[in-house]
Amino acid sequence: MTAVNKIPDIVIGRLPVYLRALSQLVVEGKTVTSSHELGQQLGISSAQIRKDLSHFGEFGKQGTGYQITHLYAQLQQILQIDREWAVAVVGIGDLGRALARYGGFSDRGFRVVAAFDSDPAKIGTDLDGLTIQSSTLIAEVVRAKQIRIAMIAVPAMHAQSVSDELVRAGVRALLNYAPITLNVPSYVHVQYIDPVAHLQHMTYYLDMS
Amino acid sequence: MTAVNKIPDIVIGRLPVYLRALSQLVVEGKTVTSSHELGQQLGISSAQIRKDLSHFGEFGKQGTGYQITHLYAQLQQILQIDREWAVAVVGIGDLGRALARYGGFSDRGFRVVAAFDSDPAKIGTDLDGLTIQSSTLIAEVVRAKQIRIAMIAVPAMHAQSVSDELVRAGVRALLNYAPITLNVPSYVHVQYIDPVAHLQHMTYYLDMS
Repeated sequence: MTAVNKIPDIVIGRLPVYLRALSQLVVEGKTVTSSHELGQQLGISSAQIRKDLSHFGEFGKQGTGYQITHLYAQLQQILQIDREWAVAVVGIGDLGRALARYGGFSDRGFRVVAAFDSDPAKIGTDLDGLTIQSSTLIAEVVRAKQIRIAMIAVPAMHAQSVSDELVRAGVRALLNYAPITLNVPSYVHVQYIDPVAHLQHMTYYLDMS
Repeated sequence: MTAVNKIPDIVIGRLPVYLRALSQLVVEGKTVTSSHELGQQLGISSAQIRKDLSHFGEFGKQGTGYQITHLYAQLQQILQIDREWAVAVVGIGDLGRALARYGGFSDRGFRVVAAFDSDPAKIGTDLDGLTIQSSTLIAEVVRAKQIRIAMIAVPAMHAQSVSDELVRAGVRALLNYAPITLNVPSYVHVQYIDPVAHLQHMTYYLDMS
């Protein structure tokens, strides 16, 4: 994977968005698309899309556009989601429950295989076929199932200690929903989801009248 | 608002992240910080932080750092969250329920004042003091309460029509959780939250062994 050091992270971050747009075009019954059409759908310039994709080689022939299924498969391979990744969810409140039950993971490369909570009332209960396990078992289960990816949906005050435990057990990618910045070793990838940050980004532009 | 055209959107997008980091420092008992400290916490260079903040004037004195409460208040004002925005949630499945009940909005500029669903079994039921209303009332309620911001948590196939209706009723900022790209007029702001896109971004970097 020599490409890791060459391609800007911001380009990698756009590939899942291209994948999602391609899915949408397939649903609309299309088989071929163009950087122009993709760009219009996403509000990105077609030049940007062509430049992003050019990092990975040739995907379309001049003038004939992209074969959607081919481009989709290539992007899946580049993002390493032409396989299924096991994922753990820690913290089964409203949000963790929504994540653990979310139907949109399975056809996009992921499967939730473990759900943890510290509340005795929840431990042992069923969540769409998944049994909620005690947080004290995180290390054991993550190691046994070789889980590399986890979603953290615990209260902010517990997020750092949960992160530490997951990383010690072998997790290398964290999707953190707690509104704090996690301290992790450099070999661990973290992405944040914070709805308030998105809302605050938009209020900047709103007319207050 | 002449600033709208001057400051890159990517800079605006980082301001909520700075706000969140400042909150964290306050919790840790700090009153003064520096671009160096903020940068370390966020994994952003201190030069980047100084450059971002310089778009909005002077926040700190050379060598003495930033007064946290002052910087926090200034950023709140810039982002227009020194007031409380009314927000609607459409689609009260697991995720919509989590959003409507989320305790983290109130002290960061937002309050969920309306929740809509199309399921007769849910309509009229209580959600932490909020009564779930029929989706057929979206236009009426959004107009009556002058709601400008909405979160969409309906299935993908319904997201575009819900978006259309919200925009017609006066909503100008949408946080979309459905995994599709919305078509909106240029005066409407949209942000997307798609956990799968974040996971796919990270799997690019994972060692598959």
